[in-house]
Amino acid sequence: MSLENISCQKSSGGWHKRYRHRSSTLNCDMTFAVYLPPQAEQGAKLPVLYWLSGLTCTDENFMQKAGAHKVAAELGLIIVAPDTSPRGEGVADDPDGAYDFGLGAGFYLNATQEPWARHYRMHDYVVHELPALIEANFPVTDRRGISGHSMGGHGALVCALRNPGRYQSMSAFAPITNPMNCPWGEKAFSRYLGDERSRWREWDACALMADASERLPILVDQGDRDDFLLDQLKPEALQAAAQAVGHPLELRLQPGYDHSYYFIASFIDDHLRHHAAALSAAS
Amino acid sequence: MSLENISCQKSSGGWHKRYRHRSSTLNCDMTFAVYLPPQAEQGAKLPVLYWLSGLTCTDENFMQKAGAHKVAAELGLIIVAPDTSPRGEGVADDPDGAYDFGLGAGFYLNATQEPWARHYRMHDYVVHELPALIEANFPVTDRRGISGHSMGGHGALVCALRNPGRYQSMSAFAPITNPMNCPWGEKAFSRYLGDERSRWREWDACALMADASERLPILVDQGDRDDFLLDQLKPEALQAAAQAVGHPLELRLQPGYDHSYYFIASFIDDHLRHHAAALSAAS
Repeated sequence: MSLENISCQKSSGGWHKRYRHRSSTLNCDMTFAVYLPPQAEQGAKLPVLYWLSGLTCTDENFMQKAGAHKVAAELGLIIVAPDTSPRGEGVADDPDGAYDFGLGAGFYLNATQEPWARHYRMHDYVVHELPALIEANFPVTDRRGISGHSMGGHGALVCALRNPGRYQSMSAFAPITNPMNCPWGEKAFSRYLGDERSRWREWDACALMADASERLPILVDQGDRDDFLLDQLKPEALQAAAQAVGHPLELRLQPGYDHSYYFIASFIDDHLRHHAAALSAAS
Repeated sequence: MSLENISCQKSSGGWHKRYRHRSSTLNCDMTFAVYLPPQAEQGAKLPVLYWLSGLTCTDENFMQKAGAHKVAAELGLIIVAPDTSPRGEGVADDPDGAYDFGLGAGFYLNATQEPWARHYRMHDYVVHELPALIEANFPVTDRRGISGHSMGGHGALVCALRNPGRYQSMSAFAPITNPMNCPWGEKAFSRYLGDERSRWREWDACALMADASERLPILVDQGDRDDFLLDQLKPEALQAAAQAVGHPLELRLQPGYDHSYYFIASFIDDHLRHHAAALSAAS
């Protein structure tokens, strides 16, 4: 599990670093980014927020566009941003090169169907392999938060709901809340998981919430001028699922905001504070 | 002088909008971006900060990566970001497609040599045509600040030093301070302005400072791990020029920072406050 550092840039008093490594889970080389706040150089052990990006993104979008470093530096929060799918010449892609399946669109699940199953195991990568790497190589506590945007918001909700005890905080921006019942999710799940819809439930936040054994509070921001709101994202489905079982959900519909990183940058500080409060609390 | 709005995105309570228009100065269609803080919707007239980007950039880099909207919203500062050169099929480019001349590299001057003189008049566009458009179409005061990065830092210094009274505040990130005496500047000036070096002085911040009739304070941030520091940027030349004539210059050498937008994002709030303080002062 050796890490190759490929860049190192000072930012808001800390460091933005990118690494390449061989992933045994994904069977390919992967790149991820980490933001290390200034406290990391002063011998402190810090909690980690994992950020999962949306369709077409890499590790770079969030780091460049979210404007998160300033408050992460203030709070002493490490941020880790993985890529959004396995990568490389041997990794199967959408046969039509579509943006919403294959490369850049791993949907944070473990595929069961070929040719996808050989590489597309982003759930296990994000939940197990990447944190093990981070915890072996950086000054971190064992407290973890998870958040993300759109497909990555779906990923954050599903990773936390499937793995009780593994995360101490969760949030999402404009998540795909109910992928079993939206075009993006139906396309991805039918290919990665096959046509048997009963197998899709374990990768759907609304379905998982019904059976969750842990009730970790969720903060969700959603713009009301988001072009994907009605067909793909469906925050009302998440709200109904949460209400049905009493899962604590703060869903904020933000007037005027769209699906872009301008929306994320506008509210990321609130999410960072939400995570830092939970992650710095006594365990 | 009609403006075509091509996008509109809510950001930090205000609006990031992009416009296309026909530029009579540049003889081509141009795109620019404006950030309107929330006060602009409340009937207030606000001062404007013009931001000039560096080599290869467009109107988008600063808006997406500088993280400037939050504090601009707090301060009630409008930010206008033009493109970095004339654009379009009829606009001559570097014959080798180099990144440091031609498209994306207008150097904020008025070219005198053909084929450049027909379009490359970015100084007049930034100082006259664009502000006239802004002042006719947005709720602005007549107080203007100017800042920029690298080639755009050079542009900001030169625009302010050449036009006493036109700007009430100026600053720069990692500016090309002495383009007459660095490879980027020598290449650009010899082509845009011809080989007679005496004509270059009117586009060189260090030379202009000697003769300036106004002593507007300058804030400059420069990373000490910037790859272009020694060969291209030469902050010590600006410091010597300022000291020679008593021009007020606060030059901050920032340890560990490079030439990227992570550096800009780390210190942009200080620059916004520097401008807002000068622009909101009684004239």
